[in-house]
Amino acid sequence: MKRYDLIVIGSGPAGEKAAVKAGYFGHRVALVEKDERYGGAGVQTGTLPSKALKETALYFSGIYEKGIYSIDHDFTRRAGIHDFMYRKNLLTSALGSEVKTNLACHHVDVYQGVGSFDDPHHIRISGALEEVIYGENILIATGSYPFRPADIPFDGQRVHDSDTILDIRRFPKSLCVLGAGVIGCAYATIFAAMGVKVFLLNNRDKILGFLDQEISNALVEQMKNRDVTLLFKASSNGFQVPEDEAEPMRISITTGQTLNVDMFLYAAGRSGNIRSLRCENAGCKTGERETLMVNDNFQTSVPHIYAVGDVIGFPALASTSMDQGRMAVAHMFKTHDLDQLTDVFPYGIYTVPEVSMVGMTEEEVRKRGISYCAGYCDYRDITRGKILGITDGGFMKVIFHRETKHILGVHIVGRMATELIHYGMALVKDKKTVDEVIATVFNNPSLHDLYKYACYDGLGNLAGHKLKRSARASQGNLQAGRG
Amino acid sequence: MKRYDLIVIGSGPAGEKAAVKAGYFGHRVALVEKDERYGGAGVQTGTLPSKALKETALYFSGIYEKGIYSIDHDFTRRAGIHDFMYRKNLLTSALGSEVKTNLACHHVDVYQGVGSFDDPHHIRISGALEEVIYGENILIATGSYPFRPADIPFDGQRVHDSDTILDIRRFPKSLCVLGAGVIGCAYATIFAAMGVKVFLLNNRDKILGFLDQEISNALVEQMKNRDVTLLFKASSNGFQVPEDEAEPMRISITTGQTLNVDMFLYAAGRSGNIRSLRCENAGCKTGERETLMVNDNFQTSVPHIYAVGDVIGFPALASTSMDQGRMAVAHMFKTHDLDQLTDVFPYGIYTVPEVSMVGMTEEEVRKRGISYCAGYCDYRDITRGKILGITDGGFMKVIFHRETKHILGVHIVGRMATELIHYGMALVKDKKTVDEVIATVFNNPSLHDLYKYACYDGLGNLAGHKLKRSARASQGNLQAGRG
Repeated sequence: MKRYDLIVIGSGPAGEKAAVKAGYFGHRVALVEKDERYGGAGVQTGTLPSKALKETALYFSGIYEKGIYSIDHDFTRRAGIHDFMYRKNLLTSALGSEVKTNLACHHVDVYQGVGSFDDPHHIRISGALEEVIYGENILIATGSYPFRPADIPFDGQRVHDSDTILDIRRFPKSLCVLGAGVIGCAYATIFAAMGVKVFLLNNRDKILGFLDQEISNALVEQMKNRDVTLLFKASSNGFQVPEDEAEPMRISITTGQTLNVDMFLYAAGRSGNIRSLRCENAGCKTGERETLMVNDNFQTSVPHIYAVGDVIGFPALASTSMDQGRMAVAHMFKTHDLDQLTDVFPYGIYTVPEVSMVGMTEEEVRKRGISYCAGYCDYRDITRGKILGITDGGFMKVIFHRETKHILGVHIVGRMATELIHYGMALVKDKKTVDEVIATVFNNPSLHDLYKYACYDGLGNLAGHKLKRSARASQGNLQAGRG
Repeated sequence: MKRYDLIVIGSGPAGEKAAVKAGYFGHRVALVEKDERYGGAGVQTGTLPSKALKETALYFSGIYEKGIYSIDHDFTRRAGIHDFMYRKNLLTSALGSEVKTNLACHHVDVYQGVGSFDDPHHIRISGALEEVIYGENILIATGSYPFRPADIPFDGQRVHDSDTILDIRRFPKSLCVLGAGVIGCAYATIFAAMGVKVFLLNNRDKILGFLDQEISNALVEQMKNRDVTLLFKASSNGFQVPEDEAEPMRISITTGQTLNVDMFLYAAGRSGNIRSLRCENAGCKTGERETLMVNDNFQTSVPHIYAVGDVIGFPALASTSMDQGRMAVAHMFKTHDLDQLTDVFPYGIYTVPEVSMVGMTEEEVRKRGISYCAGYCDYRDITRGKILGITDGGFMKVIFHRETKHILGVHIVGRMATELIHYGMALVKDKKTVDEVIATVFNNPSLHDLYKYACYDGLGNLAGHKLKRSARASQGNLQAGRG
């Protein structure tokens, strides 16, 4: 029987980075992957494909250039479904191979099959070749799968989850998305950019509840402007799927309305991949939605068994999952290069337009009773925003402490938000003040000017000496912030 | 006679921001502008137009999307010169008006005409209406103009400086650019992107000498790949301009070669706009290339007369000029909100691809005898780089102290470099270490991953434990850095 210092189960972002790191430090590492394709949801079904489709939709539709230059383009009608999927397919395939190569470079033994516990140290691999291997440490990075409620007639043809939507063979004439979380919002805006009429059903009265409310509202506005119809406090409660694909499906909505649409995407939740693990043989405690419970070191209730990534639940981002994997390895082998994960990290939402945030929302600041103020800057008010012709209402919001002027949170909805947020992350992490940002020189023109002018605006709000005030700021929560 | 707390001469980035700030703080401010269009080189002839043309060229040529999706586009042949100039013209006009509005909003009195000193406190405005006004303080922000050597037959038709190139009425069939500074390199790559054959003459043996040498070399490589022919240690020494515009000009090169090209752009230097100021009446000391000499507070040799922006020379960036203007105002009115300019600021070069840097180059670190190491990451090796299909060789280089691991400089050549650099600016300014960057969570996918993986690479180089090494790193200066 082969013996390893570490057995990793799953080759997604968390598992790959953990295995590679342990290999880099000279440990004997095995990785078990059930799929023939490597990379898990990060590469195959989640992070990468949706971002690739987003970029494709932006390019084909030309929506960011529409009306900006004297020549417009719109390839959405020319593009078939194969064109739409082309780059996504190429990338998932290429990056899957790279994961394999990366593991090989770091001398990680890869096992093909489903891994499960025989006991706390023995992992059975059930593949074409079945065998049992011993691990001094085990890291569970099995990820998550799209939850499938029993009352929805998933068929992979017209009724999809977020896995099967990636394999559609024709464009939907219209699409109903259920669930306005990160995944639902991303696909709703991607298909809308491709010219598909989209209905987005959400069982609450707002989308992406963890966002600052003004940002969330702005995203809703932009979705509406791009012809996404949002139905709040609504869910599906009945499906009629006709034999003939040319006929629309009839989807009954809890509001009493009926949607006649071509396709349906269920995007209202994921569950952890723990069923085939047989955790009962190891004694690891499980939690809600089929997740594993871990402590701050990512140890399960059995100390030498770690779990990281989607399988432990929130935040379930590729970015945080990778570092959970790295940190778990640092803990088990005492490498002391990553003893603690930062609590300041960005959230990136790859909708059209992008949304990103770091630090506290206005709602959180208020809940904590912190005396605060906010400043805003619209993309349309800075030079690079004008050059790029951005008029869709994207903006930055900077929340800062009223007395110390420390920046507490940065929130962006608009072009390149998931890139721009990182400078804000440095500001929040290092407790920089709005005064310091104002004294900073940014490249001109650059979208980072948003920081400078949002901080100027904030100081103006603070002083009550404001020459121009956006409609948003005057109608928004700013007054409350002054209390 | 009208009396003011401050008279600003020039409405470019430096002058506008200074006037507006003084107005904001309640001072009586006048601004004198000789041109009918506002905004100076920042808006009318430099920063804005070249960046607008760059974005237009990227859009029309589709070079960043070529071969990435299954549908390519190339509008460069369809686009006439009016299409090419369309957005630039629209923007310069719109932003010029905005400068005017901004000044009016801040109660700045605007005078149309050429300003000159009658004595240290009196400015004569020579316009349609001639008058003299009194200023307690004077701020000179007259900018610069393209230097025109006597031996070059500028005609604004085929032989251009960087002002007249903005008004060409037809595309050049081919273009010779003399001067591989920021302006020359930008126009060379913009026209090359539009499919124009470009020759770039440079009197030295490298371009953009202030850049890190590896970055400068990489830019040269990318220019060559985009069909720019670079001639080093070369200048023009004779012009034959035929009557018939259909015939090429013959330009003799100091190398003995001859260039048969359609148009010529001289971009080898600018001089300060001080001639019409009659500084002798005020007693301000002047320097080389028609600049004004100032101290750290931007005071000229006459304490109540300040000078900022291009007219004082290096670095002559819109970004730094604005803050010079703001700081001069802070000094003269003791507002204490901006008492010192940061010495850590980015340089942005808006070529195709962009280049940006902050902190020290490898050459500077070595000159200072600092023990250092470097890490690299290619755009093609990170997920968002792959999604965007970036294969042109763009990369990030992070230079850090060998013992303390403090990051000393960040250098980027590639997509969005002028945006990405700002996070690096925070790292350099706050003396962050490569370890801290590695422990940072970035959005995934994002181009900011360059930071994380460049730092990983750097640590690998430091430890001598490097699994993959790029050709660049192994051939480059890295070994020297280890000495």
